[in-house]
Amino acid sequence: MKASVDSNGFIAQIVGAIREVVGPEQVALHEPRFDGNEWIYLKECLDSNYVSSAGKFVDQFEQSLTNYTGAKYAISVVNGTAALQIALKLAGVKRGEEVLSPALTFVATANAISYLGAIPHFIDSEERSLGIDVLKLREYLGANTEEQSGLCVNKSTKRVIRALVPMHTFGHPSDLEQLQSIARDFNLVLVEDAAESLGSFYKGQHTGTFGLLGSLSFNGNKIITTGGGGAILTNDEGLARRAKHLTTTAKISHRWEFDHDAIGHNYRMPNINAALGCAQIEKLPEKINSKRELFKRYKEEFKQISGVSIFEESSDRKSNYWLQTLLLEEDSLRLRDSVLDISNKLGIETRPAWKLMSNIAPYRSSPAMSLAGANSLYRRIINLPSSPALSLGTR
Amino acid sequence: MKASVDSNGFIAQIVGAIREVVGPEQVALHEPRFDGNEWIYLKECLDSNYVSSAGKFVDQFEQSLTNYTGAKYAISVVNGTAALQIALKLAGVKRGEEVLSPALTFVATANAISYLGAIPHFIDSEERSLGIDVLKLREYLGANTEEQSGLCVNKSTKRVIRALVPMHTFGHPSDLEQLQSIARDFNLVLVEDAAESLGSFYKGQHTGTFGLLGSLSFNGNKIITTGGGGAILTNDEGLARRAKHLTTTAKISHRWEFDHDAIGHNYRMPNINAALGCAQIEKLPEKINSKRELFKRYKEEFKQISGVSIFEESSDRKSNYWLQTLLLEEDSLRLRDSVLDISNKLGIETRPAWKLMSNIAPYRSSPAMSLAGANSLYRRIINLPSSPALSLGTR
Repeated sequence: MKASVDSNGFIAQIVGAIREVVGPEQVALHEPRFDGNEWIYLKECLDSNYVSSAGKFVDQFEQSLTNYTGAKYAISVVNGTAALQIALKLAGVKRGEEVLSPALTFVATANAISYLGAIPHFIDSEERSLGIDVLKLREYLGANTEEQSGLCVNKSTKRVIRALVPMHTFGHPSDLEQLQSIARDFNLVLVEDAAESLGSFYKGQHTGTFGLLGSLSFNGNKIITTGGGGAILTNDEGLARRAKHLTTTAKISHRWEFDHDAIGHNYRMPNINAALGCAQIEKLPEKINSKRELFKRYKEEFKQISGVSIFEESSDRKSNYWLQTLLLEEDSLRLRDSVLDISNKLGIETRPAWKLMSNIAPYRSSPAMSLAGANSLYRRIINLPSSPALSLGTR
Repeated sequence: MKASVDSNGFIAQIVGAIREVVGPEQVALHEPRFDGNEWIYLKECLDSNYVSSAGKFVDQFEQSLTNYTGAKYAISVVNGTAALQIALKLAGVKRGEEVLSPALTFVATANAISYLGAIPHFIDSEERSLGIDVLKLREYLGANTEEQSGLCVNKSTKRVIRALVPMHTFGHPSDLEQLQSIARDFNLVLVEDAAESLGSFYKGQHTGTFGLLGSLSFNGNKIITTGGGGAILTNDEGLARRAKHLTTTAKISHRWEFDHDAIGHNYRMPNINAALGCAQIEKLPEKINSKRELFKRYKEEFKQISGVSIFEESSDRKSNYWLQTLLLEEDSLRLRDSVLDISNKLGIETRPAWKLMSNIAPYRSSPAMSLAGANSLYRRIINLPSSPALSLGTR
């Protein structure tokens, strides 16, 4: 048991540890790095005149994504939210149904569910993975749902629960085997929100490839960026074809006729953004190495400080360490806002976890299990500066 | 009365006229042109490290759009479909309501309505503007709707008709004053789909600024492109603020907290796409001049051919002539597909108008007035190669 925390000393220790790792300059939470073929590909893209829907970089980027993740198919889209929305649509999620997702996630997870007219049903998280608490979830579903004609029905709302959407928090893989097993046992479709976890593996298999479909994000703050972008992963050829179709306005292929067989979306990734992605993904292994190196340095610095620890992957997983995560212990919780305040004032960008989805206005009335674990994590988490460039040596 | 059309001679005449204008090479329907500061701004964007949500090009592009269009506010978004969806949401369109839009339009108009759970209600078009037939619309609304508590109600479906969405076909302005007057008289909110008409004016005022809100598109085939992109135009400060909020996940501004007060969207335009837009819009006047020049040359060539004419703006409007439009006359209609087939086989990309929305699968059961004008236009229209570069002289 560590001693109780002296607030000024504690905050100075934390800031000092971060400074030891990132150096004395102003530092962002996460900055992209363009040190590869970005220029060459952008120039090629402009010179080809194909910046938009046609052009080779979209195909090339999708190919790189399948090569890297091992998914059979990757369909690039305009952003991660769009990717998850279409993945859920293809998973069969319909208006008035429920979809299980962690309360501890970025709002996009819940929004993607809402766009389909479905209702997010929030579940708890735990500290070992920062993802869904699989033990609590299994128990909860056993007590609160029943099987009806091969579907999972919420006994209280009488609504079908169609899908289960884990999110790999800050890049750390959730308990994917257990989640697959729960999905099987309770007739749920597993769809992974892997927006943060490109480059993260569970027992050697890439996150986002365990469910029927998975979604990725290449937003500016992600491990690789296309400016804005996302992708749908799947091993199912029919779903892949349908994903491409629905994200390109559901236009029926024809030499000149404009006809559409469904209400599709204008969600394709422009070629110019894919060109950026092609250059970025070439450097993905290097970026991951940098982030893992950064993790080690944070871990080393913070092990000397009482009341905090740096989140570390389990031995059966390999995290991309997208966002480095400090966990406050019980007796330092009251200092979270002071740490955030002082570090940001000093030019070190830090941030807490997202407010739980069950606590934000648009989702306050959504169904939720007891969220003790997620609530605790929300109070304990502080994300630290995590740009891959930081490990290249300010010291 | 012109003589009846000899099919082989007629098609040869049409192909010959196009060749006279565009030259002997293979020619696309519409290609973008990057001959301005695209390079400089893209490089600046990459070098700044802000390719995504932060960065100055988004602000600069929005400023250029307000300067050019005269709208007080422009909010850049991920594409034109997203722009129209959010414009309609801000106009108050709700699930189960109807929205009037032309049957002769690209599917995005109807889809944007559908995303809100509303039902498109299709109206007829006429040949003078290629847009909504305002005389028929006024008569139709008089006979088929009634006012209830200040709202327009469809007498047959009993649904509220909330909004009227003209689309300025191929860049040619619709009858905006009449549309404003109809909207006023029938309690409809006017929202303009100006996806194709950046650079088009009605009595000196830019299209997209007559309604409460308007939407633009910068897709790769448009008069200027950002790869993929769009914008919302409005003169209302509150709506502009709300548009920015809803297109950036409805996040409440805070130094570190992630909280959201509505179900927002991930619809912001990435900075890298805005950088391209900043360069493109500098050249917009030049592009419009090229297109107007191209129109004159097509007009000159086609006036010698019986059974066809080139669409020309009315004297009170200035069109951007985004897509040049050939109109077949009654006795040459049967040759439309042969003209399309042969021209495309010869490497001249031509296309017909979009299949009417009332005839495509997802909208076949939507309400619609009689569509004689739109049906006739669908059979008569052939779009010709329209790239601005074509007027720069292959001859």
